[in-house]
Amino acid sequence: MDPRIEKHAKILVEWSTEVKKGDMVLVRATPNSHDLAVAIVHEVAKIGGNTVVLMDSEEMSYAYFKGAEEDTLKQVSKHVKALYENTDVIIALRSPMNTRATSNIDPKKMITRSIASQPISEIMMSKRWCLTVHPCATLAQQGNMSMDEYQEFVYNSMFIDWKEESKNMHLIKEHLEKHDDVRFVGPETDLYAKTKGRIWIASDGKRNMPSGEVFTAPIEDTVEGKIYFDIPFMQQGKVIEGVRLTFEKGEVVDYSVEKNEEAFKAVLETDEGSRYLGEMAIGTNRGIKDYTLNMLFDEKIGDTIHCALGRAYKECNGVNESAIHVDMIKTMIEGEITAGDETIYSKGKFFFE
Amino acid sequence: MDPRIEKHAKILVEWSTEVKKGDMVLVRATPNSHDLAVAIVHEVAKIGGNTVVLMDSEEMSYAYFKGAEEDTLKQVSKHVKALYENTDVIIALRSPMNTRATSNIDPKKMITRSIASQPISEIMMSKRWCLTVHPCATLAQQGNMSMDEYQEFVYNSMFIDWKEESKNMHLIKEHLEKHDDVRFVGPETDLYAKTKGRIWIASDGKRNMPSGEVFTAPIEDTVEGKIYFDIPFMQQGKVIEGVRLTFEKGEVVDYSVEKNEEAFKAVLETDEGSRYLGEMAIGTNRGIKDYTLNMLFDEKIGDTIHCALGRAYKECNGVNESAIHVDMIKTMIEGEITAGDETIYSKGKFFFE
Repeated sequence: MDPRIEKHAKILVEWSTEVKKGDMVLVRATPNSHDLAVAIVHEVAKIGGNTVVLMDSEEMSYAYFKGAEEDTLKQVSKHVKALYENTDVIIALRSPMNTRATSNIDPKKMITRSIASQPISEIMMSKRWCLTVHPCATLAQQGNMSMDEYQEFVYNSMFIDWKEESKNMHLIKEHLEKHDDVRFVGPETDLYAKTKGRIWIASDGKRNMPSGEVFTAPIEDTVEGKIYFDIPFMQQGKVIEGVRLTFEKGEVVDYSVEKNEEAFKAVLETDEGSRYLGEMAIGTNRGIKDYTLNMLFDEKIGDTIHCALGRAYKECNGVNESAIHVDMIKTMIEGEITAGDETIYSKGKFFFE
Repeated sequence: MDPRIEKHAKILVEWSTEVKKGDMVLVRATPNSHDLAVAIVHEVAKIGGNTVVLMDSEEMSYAYFKGAEEDTLKQVSKHVKALYENTDVIIALRSPMNTRATSNIDPKKMITRSIASQPISEIMMSKRWCLTVHPCATLAQQGNMSMDEYQEFVYNSMFIDWKEESKNMHLIKEHLEKHDDVRFVGPETDLYAKTKGRIWIASDGKRNMPSGEVFTAPIEDTVEGKIYFDIPFMQQGKVIEGVRLTFEKGEVVDYSVEKNEEAFKAVLETDEGSRYLGEMAIGTNRGIKDYTLNMLFDEKIGDTIHCALGRAYKECNGVNESAIHVDMIKTMIEGEITAGDETIYSKGKFFFE
C-alpha cells in the first residue's frame, strides 16, 4: 500500500471524523478509490470500529437515471435510509471515473431524485461526516497534470499540521468576529461588507479534507465596492476568467468578464439571490499553491480570498437564497484584509505571523 | 456496455430474484464487477426498484482482519444489519481481485467474525437472494483460460432457457421423489442409497447463477457400494484427482486417491460426519462442458453426478453434521441413474429426452 494512502486514511479517521471504539463507519467510494477505502477499513478496525463501503459511480448514476421513471425517482431508498440512521461516521471519497457521464440526463430527473433523497441527506448531515478526494486519472486530467503530479498536489494539500492549522484558523475567526465588518483591498479591488451577527466558520479539515478557509455570509444588502477575481473557475462546463464586479447595496450593478461572459451572465441571472453574495471567505491552505478548476481545492488556496454569488450558509446566519452558489477566487499576496480598525492579513502575512 | 453483461443482469433481476416495482435491492460487488453492478442498477430501475451497491474485496478483508482485535470482531455491524433488514433482494457478485489475500490471516479471527455476522447471514437467507460470478482475470487464471475464453465459458453456462430448464429439473425431482432410493451406475461405480422422506431440490438458477443440479441428502447409514470420481477438485489449495470410495452402512470403509492423497485424507478425517455423504446430486447444466476447479460451475456440469462428504442440507431433511462439505464429481455419459424400478438417466439422456 502506498504509505501516502495510509497517511490520508489516518487523517480522515483520527482528525476529520474522530472515529472511536464501537463506531459504525460508512465509506462511500468509487472503484477508483478502492485502495483508500481499504486503508480506512484498516484504520477504523485498529480503533475498534466496523466499516461498510458503498460503491457508487457516475456510470451507475447514468444507468439509474436512464432506467428510472418518476415514481421510482420519488421513492425513498428505505434500506439506504436505515443504513445511514444506524451509522456514526460517514466518509465520502470523491474519485470520479467519468465526470461527464450524466451530461445528457434530463436535469429534472436528477432534481426529483435529489428531493426524494433529502431525508437521507439530512440524516447524513446530523452525523460526523467528511468529504475528501482520492487522486485518480480523471481528476488529474481535469487539473491538467500527470497522475504523479496530481498525487503530489493532493497529498501536499492534506499532509499539513491540522492541529496547528486549526489553532490559527480559530484565531482568525475570533479576531474577525470581534468586529462588525470586513474589507478586502488589493489590485482593482476594494470590497466592503457588514458582518455583525454573522458567524465566521473555521473550516479546519473536519468536513472537507483538504480544507483551509475561514468563511461567513455577509449581511446581504451591505456589500459595497468592486472586486477583481483573477483565478479562473469552472461553471457549466466552461472555464470563466477575469470577472470584475461592482456592488451597490449588496447587488451586482456592473460587471465585466474576460472569457466566457455568456456562461457568467447565465449564473448572474439565475434568480433574485444570484446577484447577491452568499459568502465571503479567506483561503488559508498554503499546501495548495495552484488552481486545478476543482473548487474543493481552489477555494482553499493559501493567500487568497473568495466570494460566492447566491445561496448563503445557514450556519453563518446567512439568509440569501438562490438555486446557485458560485465561488470566485482572488489572489491576495498583494492585498490586505481588514476588520473594523484591525489588519487581519497583509501581503502574505496574517496578524499573528 | 458489453451486451452479455446486460443480458446477465436481466437474468439475475427477472429470473433469479424476480425483482418487482418498489423492491429495495442490495448488490454486493468488488471493483472488478462494477460493470455488472451498473447493469443491475439499470434493470432494477426500469422495473421500478432502487438499488444500493456494497463494495467488498479480499484486500479489504485482509486489512480488516489485520487491524481488528477480538472485541471488534465480535461486534455486530448494526448499520449493515439495518440495511439488510430493510432490503428485499440481495444479489452477490463473485468477482475476486486476489483469492489468496487472506491466506496468512489467523483462521480463528475469521471464524469469530463469521459467528458475529450470523444474525446478518440469517436475515439474508430470509430474503430473495442470488449468488453469481462476473468474469474477471483472477477467475480466468484459476480456470487456466484467457479472459476471452473465460467470458465465453461463464456466459455459456448462464445464457440458457431457464424456464425450460426449470421445467425439466422439476420433472426429474418429481420422478426421484416417487421412489425410496437412488442408484448411480457407471465405470468402476455402483452406488446405492435410500432417500425415503428426503427432499430432492431442483436448483434452477434462483439462488445460484449459473445453476443446474437436482440434489438431496441420502439417508446417512444406507449408502452402499463404490464410486470413482474422475473430475479433479480443489481442496485446501490442492488439486485432488481420481478419488475412489467404498461405502458400507453409509461410512467410507476403503478409499484410494490418484493425486494429493494427503489432502483428501485430511478432509475424510475431519470429524465423525466427514466419513458420511451429506449430498447426492445430478448435474444438469449442459452449457458447462468442462471443469474449472470452481465448484459453483463444476458441480453443475451436464451429464455428471456429484456426492459431498460431510454436512447435509436441512432443506433436504438431511441430518449429517460436519465442519466440512466437500463435493466430488463424476462424468455419467457412460452411466445410468435409477430410482426404484425407474431409469431416470441413461448414457446422455434423461427419461423424458
